[in-house]
Amino acid sequence: MKTIDNPYLPLTPEIAARIMDAVGKDACITDPRKLESFSQDASEFRCTPDLVVEAVSADQVQALLRLANEYRFPVVPRGAGTGLTGGALPFWGGVVLSLARMNRILSIDRENLIAVVQPGVINMDLKRAAQNVGLYYPPDPASLDTCSLGGNAATNAAGPSCVKYGTTRDYVLGLEAVLPSGEKIKAGVQTRKGVVGYDLAHLLVGSEGTLCVITELTLKLIPNPPAIMTLVALFPRLAEAMRAVTAILGRGHIPCAMEFMDRRCLELVGDYMPFDGVQESGAFLLVEVDGVPEVIQREIEIIGEICLEFEAVNVLLAPDSHKRAQMWAVRKEVSLRIEHHFPLYIPEDIVVPMGRIAEFVEGLPRFEELYGMKIYSFGHAGDGNIHLNITGESRDIARRVEEGIADILQRVLAMGGTISGEHGIGMAKNRFLHMELSKESIRIQREIKKVFDPAMILNPGKIF
Amino acid sequence: MKTIDNPYLPLTPEIAARIMDAVGKDACITDPRKLESFSQDASEFRCTPDLVVEAVSADQVQALLRLANEYRFPVVPRGAGTGLTGGALPFWGGVVLSLARMNRILSIDRENLIAVVQPGVINMDLKRAAQNVGLYYPPDPASLDTCSLGGNAATNAAGPSCVKYGTTRDYVLGLEAVLPSGEKIKAGVQTRKGVVGYDLAHLLVGSEGTLCVITELTLKLIPNPPAIMTLVALFPRLAEAMRAVTAILGRGHIPCAMEFMDRRCLELVGDYMPFDGVQESGAFLLVEVDGVPEVIQREIEIIGEICLEFEAVNVLLAPDSHKRAQMWAVRKEVSLRIEHHFPLYIPEDIVVPMGRIAEFVEGLPRFEELYGMKIYSFGHAGDGNIHLNITGESRDIARRVEEGIADILQRVLAMGGTISGEHGIGMAKNRFLHMELSKESIRIQREIKKVFDPAMILNPGKIF
Repeated sequence: MKTIDNPYLPLTPEIAARIMDAVGKDACITDPRKLESFSQDASEFRCTPDLVVEAVSADQVQALLRLANEYRFPVVPRGAGTGLTGGALPFWGGVVLSLARMNRILSIDRENLIAVVQPGVINMDLKRAAQNVGLYYPPDPASLDTCSLGGNAATNAAGPSCVKYGTTRDYVLGLEAVLPSGEKIKAGVQTRKGVVGYDLAHLLVGSEGTLCVITELTLKLIPNPPAIMTLVALFPRLAEAMRAVTAILGRGHIPCAMEFMDRRCLELVGDYMPFDGVQESGAFLLVEVDGVPEVIQREIEIIGEICLEFEAVNVLLAPDSHKRAQMWAVRKEVSLRIEHHFPLYIPEDIVVPMGRIAEFVEGLPRFEELYGMKIYSFGHAGDGNIHLNITGESRDIARRVEEGIADILQRVLAMGGTISGEHGIGMAKNRFLHMELSKESIRIQREIKKVFDPAMILNPGKIF
Repeated sequence: MKTIDNPYLPLTPEIAARIMDAVGKDACITDPRKLESFSQDASEFRCTPDLVVEAVSADQVQALLRLANEYRFPVVPRGAGTGLTGGALPFWGGVVLSLARMNRILSIDRENLIAVVQPGVINMDLKRAAQNVGLYYPPDPASLDTCSLGGNAATNAAGPSCVKYGTTRDYVLGLEAVLPSGEKIKAGVQTRKGVVGYDLAHLLVGSEGTLCVITELTLKLIPNPPAIMTLVALFPRLAEAMRAVTAILGRGHIPCAMEFMDRRCLELVGDYMPFDGVQESGAFLLVEVDGVPEVIQREIEIIGEICLEFEAVNVLLAPDSHKRAQMWAVRKEVSLRIEHHFPLYIPEDIVVPMGRIAEFVEGLPRFEELYGMKIYSFGHAGDGNIHLNITGESRDIARRVEEGIADILQRVLAMGGTISGEHGIGMAKNRFLHMELSKESIRIQREIKKVFDPAMILNPGKIF
C-alpha cells in the first residue's frame, strides 16, 4: 500500500517522553507485543503504531493533540477496533489514541429522552441501560456487542433497523470533541431541534476520525417498543423477494428490519437455519415489526400474506425467541463463514435504490465470470444496502478481483447507488472515492479537512 | 441595523447589463415597484434589492454567481419569502436570486420512495403529489401552503410532526447545488444510506443560503399513514399538561403532533375554538397520532386517559374533520393575532429540554415584569420547541425588550436549550450567536464559509 514515502518523521524517544509527561505514563503503551493488538481492526489491513495512548479524559486528548501539532506526528483515534476499512489503523505510524477506557454512561434522562455517554461505551451497553428505563437506542451495527458508540458516530454506523429508525447520525443530537488543534468544542444541541449556525455536529459524525476526536456524545433515545415480531420467508428467486419488500413498504408498513440473503449464502449457512427448505430456495427474507403487541400481531400476518402473494414458497410466522435468536446469529455469522471459506475475501458495502436490488444481484454472475471471483450477497432489503462478499479461490487473483470490484462499483453508481452504505472509506476504499465524488466535491472536502487540521496530524491517509 | 459602511460597491448599470446578458433579460426585474415585493419576508426587516433574477435553470444560477465573483456584488437566494429572520433579504443590497420559478416536481419514484424536486416547489404541492401515490412527505412548517422546499432545506425547517418524523434534514438524501464560485456539485445520495466522504449534503441543509444555492433536492418519502386521529385536552396549568406529555412519550406512544398553547394565547384565541371552556383554562394540548385506524383508535383513547390522569379538566376525543381543521387554523393563526394586537412584536423560537417546558414558561412573568413586555407561548411540546411571541404596548420600549430577550435566551441556554429550533439565525439573531456558540465553533464555521465563498458574495450579513 505504502508506495510513497512517509511524510511524517519517526516518533523519537524524546517525543515519546514528552507524550508520557503530558498524558501520564500509565496511559501509554510502548511494549511491542501490546502494540500489536492495536495494529488491526476487522479489515485485512495491518499497521503497527509507535505508541498507544489510552485516554481516560478529554484533557489527555487535548494534551496529546497539542504535542502532535508541535512535533507533527500522526494521531489515530480508535474506538473498539471493529471497523471494516482500516479507519482506526495508523497508516503512517505514530500514535493510536484509544478511547476504549472512556466508557461511562454519564446520564440517561428519562424525561427528556436523551443519553450522555463517553465515546468508549459499547453500543449494547447503552441499549441495555436504556431498555432498563423503558427507552430505546435503535442503531444496531452487526458488531453491536463489541463496537463503541464513538466509533459508531465516527463512521455513521447503521444496521438492520435503519429502514425504520435511521443511522447513528439521526441519534446524535450533540457532541463534545477535541479538534486537531487541541481546542475542545461543543457542537449540536441537547434538545430535539436546533438550527443555530452550520451543522458541525453532523459534519463531524461520519468524518472517520479525520476532523476531531469525539470525547462525549449526547444521544437521542425513543420510547422502547413494547414488542417485536419476526417473519421468515423463502422465495424461489431474489426478484420475487424484492417485489414483496416493495409491496410491504408500498402498502404502508415500516418494518424495523428487512434482511435478505441470496442463494449463495443459503447454500453456505442454510443447514444452520432452524427450519427446512432453506438450502434449496433462491432467497431468504427476514422481516421484523415492532410496536404494540395487538397491532404487530395483525401486521406480521398481513406481511406474511404479502410474501405469499409474491410467490414465497414457505413463510414461517413468529418463530419462538430461541429460533429467532438462532436465525439472527446465522444472519450475522454469514460473513465470517464466507471469510473462513476462502483465501481471498473482500467485503464491499454498496447501496442501490432498493427497487433495483434484484436486478443488481442478478447481474453479478457476469462479473464473477469476467473476473474469476465468487460473490455472496446479503444485506438490508429495506434500504438497498447490500453487503457484497467478494471471494477468490486464491490470493493470486487479487489484482484481477480488484479490477472486478471497480467494475461492479461503476455499475452501482450507474444505477444511482453509492459505494459505501455503512462501513465508510478508511483506507479500504479511498482509491475509489473519485468514482463517486466530483473533483469539486473532493476539493471542498479537502479544504474543510484543512480548516480543522492544518498540520494534517489527525488520522492521515484516510478517506482522501 | 447598518452601522458599518456597506463593503460592497453599488450595482452599476454596466454590471446590471452583464447580468441581463448572462441570464437573459426576461429573468431580470429592475422596476422599483416590483423590486419592493422582494424586499421583505415574514420578519419585520426590509431591504430592497438592486435587481432580482428569477432563475428557471441552474445554468442561470451559475452564470450569475460567476459574475458576482467577477464584480463582487452580493447574491441572496430566495425561495417563497416566508422566512422569519430576514434570511432571504439583501442586507447589503445587490441581487436577489429567486428560485420560485424552479417549481417542478421532477419525479416521484414509488418503488424507491424518493422524490426529486426543484427548489421552488411548494411544500404542500409535494405533500399532495406524494399522497396521490400513497406516499408521505412529513416536514410541515406552519407556512406549508406557501413555503418552498428549497427554503425549507436552506433553513432546515420543521413543524408539529417533528416529534415523530424529524426535520427537513432527515428527508434530504441528496442535492444539487451551485457553489458561490459558480461550480455545480452533487452532494449526498439518492439512496437511504451513504457514508462516502464528509456529509456535505447535510452541512448545506440549514446553511441559510450562505454556502450554496440549492438547485435540486432528492427527498426521502415514506409510506402514507392510512389514518390520523386527534385529541384536545384542557388543563388547569401548563405544568400538568407537560407532565401528561412526558407520560405519553414515556409509556411508548409517539404522536405525530403534540402542540400546546399557554393561558395568554387561550385568552386571545379561545373564543374561536370549536368547544367550551378554552378561555378559562390554563393550557391547551393537541395530540395527534397517525397509523392504522384500529390501532390509533385505541391509542388515542389511551392518550385521553393519560391526560385525565394528569388532571385535564376537559378532553375532546377525535373531533370531526371540520372541527379538526378549525383547531389547526386557530393554532396556526395565533401568531398573526398576536402580531396584529401589538405595535411591538418579536417572534422568538427557543428550545428547552422538553421536561423543562413548564418550568421555563412559568418563569416568564418575571421577565415580563422586569422588561415591560407581554409574552405569549405556544409550540411543540413533544420536542421542547417554544414559539415565544414577545410583545410591547409601544415601539418605544424596543431597546428594553431587546435586553429582556437577551436575558431570556441566557435562561434558555442555562437550561440546556438552544436559541433557535426552526427559524434560523438570518439577520434576526446573529447578535445572539456568541451566546450559544463558542469562539472556536464560530471561527471554524467562518472558515468553512470561506472555503465555499472566498469572495463573500453569497448572502453576506447573515448568521455571523
